[in-house]
Amino acid sequence: MIQFQCDYAEGAHPNILKRLIETNDLQTVGYGEDEICDSARARIKACIGREDADVHFLVGGTQANLTVIASILRPHQGVISANSGHINVHETGAIEATGHKVLALNSEDGTIFGYQVKELMETHIHDGAREHTVQPAMVYISISTENGTLYPKQQLFDLYDVCQEYELPLFIDGARLGYALASPANDLTIQDIANHCDVFYIGGTKVGALFGEAVVITNPSLKRDFRYLIKQKGGMLAKGRLLGIQFDELFKDNLYFEISKHAIHLAMKIKKACEEFKIPFAFESFTNQQFLVLTNKQVEKLEEKFVVSHIENRKDTKVIRICTSWATKEENVDLLIETLKEVSLI
Amino acid sequence: MIQFQCDYAEGAHPNILKRLIETNDLQTVGYGEDEICDSARARIKACIGREDADVHFLVGGTQANLTVIASILRPHQGVISANSGHINVHETGAIEATGHKVLALNSEDGTIFGYQVKELMETHIHDGAREHTVQPAMVYISISTENGTLYPKQQLFDLYDVCQEYELPLFIDGARLGYALASPANDLTIQDIANHCDVFYIGGTKVGALFGEAVVITNPSLKRDFRYLIKQKGGMLAKGRLLGIQFDELFKDNLYFEISKHAIHLAMKIKKACEEFKIPFAFESFTNQQFLVLTNKQVEKLEEKFVVSHIENRKDTKVIRICTSWATKEENVDLLIETLKEVSLI
Amino acid sequence: MIQFQCDYAEGAHPNILKRLIETNDLQTVGYGEDEICDSARARIKACIGREDADVHFLVGGTQANLTVIASILRPHQGVISANSGHINVHETGAIEATGHKVLALNSEDGTIFGYQVKELMETHIHDGAREHTVQPAMVYISISTENGTLYPKQQLFDLYDVCQEYELPLFIDGARLGYALASPANDLTIQDIANHCDVFYIGGTKVGALFGEAVVITNPSLKRDFRYLIKQKGGMLAKGRLLGIQFDELFKDNLYFEISKHAIHLAMKIKKACEEFKIPFAFESFTNQQFLVLTNKQVEKLEEKFVVSHIENRKDTKVIRICTSWATKEENVDLLIETLKEVSLI
Amino acid sequence: MIQFQCDYAEGAHPNILKRLIETNDLQTVGYGEDEICDSARARIKACIGREDADVHFLVGGTQANLTVIASILRPHQGVISANSGHINVHETGAIEATGHKVLALNSEDGTIFGYQVKELMETHIHDGAREHTVQPAMVYISISTENGTLYPKQQLFDLYDVCQEYELPLFIDGARLGYALASPANDLTIQDIANHCDVFYIGGTKVGALFGEAVVITNPSLKRDFRYLIKQKGGMLAKGRLLGIQFDELFKDNLYFEISKHAIHLAMKIKKACEEFKIPFAFESFTNQQFLVLTNKQVEKLEEKFVVSHIENRKDTKVIRICTSWATKEENVDLLIETLKEVSLI
Repeated sequence: MIQFQCDYAEGAHPNILKRLIETNDLQTVGYGEDEICDSARARIKACIGREDADVHFLVGGTQANLTVIASILRPHQGVISANSGHINVHETGAIEATGHKVLALNSEDGTIFGYQVKELMETHIHDGAREHTVQPAMVYISISTENGTLYPKQQLFDLYDVCQEYELPLFIDGARLGYALASPANDLTIQDIANHCDVFYIGGTKVGALFGEAVVITNPSLKRDFRYLIKQKGGMLAKGRLLGIQFDELFKDNLYFEISKHAIHLAMKIKKACEEFKIPFAFESFTNQQFLVLTNKQVEKLEEKFVVSHIENRKDTKVIRICTSWATKEENVDLLIETLKEVSLI
Repeated sequence: MIQFQCDYAEGAHPNILKRLIETNDLQTVGYGEDEICDSARARIKACIGREDADVHFLVGGTQANLTVIASILRPHQGVISANSGHINVHETGAIEATGHKVLALNSEDGTIFGYQVKELMETHIHDGAREHTVQPAMVYISISTENGTLYPKQQLFDLYDVCQEYELPLFIDGARLGYALASPANDLTIQDIANHCDVFYIGGTKVGALFGEAVVITNPSLKRDFRYLIKQKGGMLAKGRLLGIQFDELFKDNLYFEISKHAIHLAMKIKKACEEFKIPFAFESFTNQQFLVLTNKQVEKLEEKFVVSHIENRKDTKVIRICTSWATKEENVDLLIETLKEVSLI
Repeated sequence: MIQFQCDYAEGAHPNILKRLIETNDLQTVGYGEDEICDSARARIKACIGREDADVHFLVGGTQANLTVIASILRPHQGVISANSGHINVHETGAIEATGHKVLALNSEDGTIFGYQVKELMETHIHDGAREHTVQPAMVYISISTENGTLYPKQQLFDLYDVCQEYELPLFIDGARLGYALASPANDLTIQDIANHCDVFYIGGTKVGALFGEAVVITNPSLKRDFRYLIKQKGGMLAKGRLLGIQFDELFKDNLYFEISKHAIHLAMKIKKACEEFKIPFAFESFTNQQFLVLTNKQVEKLEEKFVVSHIENRKDTKVIRICTSWATKEENVDLLIETLKEVSLI
Repeated sequence: MIQFQCDYAEGAHPNILKRLIETNDLQTVGYGEDEICDSARARIKACIGREDADVHFLVGGTQANLTVIASILRPHQGVISANSGHINVHETGAIEATGHKVLALNSEDGTIFGYQVKELMETHIHDGAREHTVQPAMVYISISTENGTLYPKQQLFDLYDVCQEYELPLFIDGARLGYALASPANDLTIQDIANHCDVFYIGGTKVGALFGEAVVITNPSLKRDFRYLIKQKGGMLAKGRLLGIQFDELFKDNLYFEISKHAIHLAMKIKKACEEFKIPFAFESFTNQQFLVLTNKQVEKLEEKFVVSHIENRKDTKVIRICTSWATKEENVDLLIETLKEVSLI
């Protein structure tokens, strides 16, 4: 069986393993204060063009989300998110477990708009009983989203303008940031992102690393004591250099961006094939996640050889997700396309 | 200005004040373990026909909700509620502040149905990634609801059946229980309620008391250590007898039910008048809250003499709420009806 | 049996009951925004000489403590307290339930000193691994303390200086503030207190009210959104005027201070008698709580007629607490003294 | 500079790196449900002689502690620990952040005794006001402790008996379990440990792994839904197999125990040398942490070549910690001993 189920089925980019071995006997101080982490931080800051940023390495996405959000909010405040946002549906209530409500906005495609945030804020501010409702106090988005969709530059800039107007920190979950930036439909640079939010993270787990997310805090007022929060929430690795090693390699010689392109190249190949075979999509995605609508019979056929994710059961059809990654082999994609052709004829 | 804005604009039923004065010099032990509280508990248990129940007196509704819910759930679990449920929209995230997500179900009229809960449970149980989502673990409803609507007996019984099937404790918020039971459209008794849920409360604040809600736990597995929770959440009154006094009076000679009928009688008078004047309703309510749809001009006119609640701004109209209570004066209702007549002609 | 067990055995001062009756039919807006609450707030601000303060009325002490502390601290921060502090031992972990550690300092008599706080801060700041420990971020004290002891003016002023040096908000629990101020050993005024802390509360429950504590926030940076916190923690009374009524009466014509003097007069009478009868004290207290060390036999004898609190079981002796209050009758004190004389001869 | 500061200065045992490389291209399902994790779980269960146990892999110690404790306790409950316990002093309030108080018992050497727990339980149970205090509901200990000390078999068995008498789950933090078991002073087997607690973990981070702790739940009543908790607290690694790989290697051919012996051999060499040089210890330790009392001048001298941990500043002396680990080189130990000899003569 060949897996297209997710973008974390394999290990890490060989450069990372090589570096792990080279540095294995090195003695370093713990908790991310070693020279390898310093080097990785420097590379990231140079890459995003923000020497003033604070960079912290955390183990995973849910941990990064809950740590950042808990660090920012006071007890009566909530975080605005698309209803399909990862924090709202796939983190077992991690945000609520830190005491905060996720204020979900309707979203067709996984993105939200500045005007929606504006509307929510105005409603809250003018509510005579506003103290009886959660105060919206920050905004969370994902680039790319759970649906594989992107934020067009103008949509992000407008959203950030609204956030600044209402003093709402904007937090971008970049678990799949590499794949977003490598998309042919994307018009944002990583510098644009760094300059149009208050804190974001660069996902490693899904983009070449064994594990790890690099949290970048650009807003100075959000930097204070963040390491205490990392420790408290269980995210401070004793051998912090493991995370440093991974991001140091990923941000050397553009590796992060190169391997992301590979995944997108293959995803676009699958997309084009589906279009040719008239297989409909649940969402039009130009990133590494493709959401196909297939009949139950078609799914059965596909699953004889491939593992895919089941996203939604509709009446006679299913939405399934196919993911590519930095590690996906082109020969497996070719096999998949062949099978999709057969499947489309059922 | 005459207030129809809420059902807590006045003080308490005179019997309660009288008893406060009579007992003022009495020395009692604290924290609800005195003989007056014992008497009140006995009256409530007799009234609901459940000698086996535990009865606790808490200060207010939000406190009762958060204490009961925090007492029942484990950290990864959430509480199912109508999206319009008080815990979901009007408690400043009190439930989330105890660590739990409110799992909101769509609701047209403020009630939810057994089949909705069943569907949610089946979806959760069969989700391959269920550990990544909050586990639904109890159900919260209000009788009457935020929209003034009622649970028909069969709807409650069906819901409770589903709850039992999935081992979900059912918790009924009875902040307006008196008004629900007194409604001409109601077919439930207080015994029905006690026998078709695991824990509920009888609202005092809105029904004759100065303040206070009587939490009734009928499911033995939910009784353990509840007093620790009351204390921790700040709900254990040093002079606990104040709550005992109020419920002892309210449950003497049917007072709770008699004063509720008064509020409903007046609400139905207003409802009938609106129907006659062709004033539309946002929700059809047979309880003490009436939701009128008026043009902005009509609202302005009405507000020359009366205070009402603004519930929703629609395009050219507003939904306003008119409440009656045990304390509402019939002469004020007559004045209101006169004005509504004028208003209806604008 | 006559109760000297606590200072909340009776109801409220008659003036409060009278006002409750007079205002019972009045229609007011809810949640503490009515004119009676406004009047009470104005009286308190005038009394303490701080027109700039924010005054909020909460239901009880545990609630006031947890609401204030949760409002101030970020997640990684803790509150410094004497090990005998109410928040550390008698609130069922209410502070921890909001996510924060109580950082307990040793205390002989229930008070803490500026130098202890300074030492803790210096240790924390110079700890190379400080991110691995809770950050001390505010100080909590009680006046009078759990042991009935007082803060001499200089001790409070020194403590506040240290707090300011380290930017630690100082929070004073004044559940028994009236009794502290009325003590012959006290050299603080209520204005001193208001001017040497960041937030404090004036206890009503134990000093003449049915229930209620008036939280006074003098530090402007702590005022923001406090009402959201009150609501979330279940402390916002629908009929907020009940609290306004009580504090409006207590702060009319010096009533709060007059009734406190009564309690202290009686406590000092008991203290003097014990000294005469050579009954030892566990703590030397000049407030309304007296801590006597009696043999088990002596306690038995005393408890034939009186209810007292058991504080500590020592080898052959017990520490028992005798409380007076605004409501204590002089004739009962005389009876008690007679019995103590007999007891002392056993 | 040579590091003896901690037991996590280097990477991982070479077998682990080798396996990482071998398995890098393998596609596995995520979140610890892959075959490598299954194999590791099987090895651990066989090793401890408990086929009925549940084994979960978590990223680090603080995370393991907070996840296990949050999973067990209800909101009003606390966890009993030595005052020097890691959860009480070195986790930035991680336990309190999940809502629970750490109930600290005095401890001379880092261990606690059954009679102390018994005493606390009896005091709580017989406290008339017990609902006003946190309910002790589980016990946390570390083997070895923060002071490098061990639990003699009888002390552990007695403690567990008390825990069972009072229905208190016993949780053992085994971050340094390997080093404890390899100690010449130890009389416990890993089977003894598995059979005399309810849940424990086997530390990988400090004993040969890159990172990771294996939580073993033997008490069936604590198993339910633990994976939800792992996910919520941010501990569920997408590429879960990374943890499986590490424990599969560590529990192959006794590797975990062999490499632990190496660390202890070197620590005992240092211990013996100190005894010979008359360097006093703060605690007598037979594990991989040695706590030396040196004058400030001696410390300065030592730190010309070696990095050590500062544990406590006394008047003219310091307590410093020297750690060995599976990775420590004997030649470095020999150099250290030479220097200690010189140091002892200052």
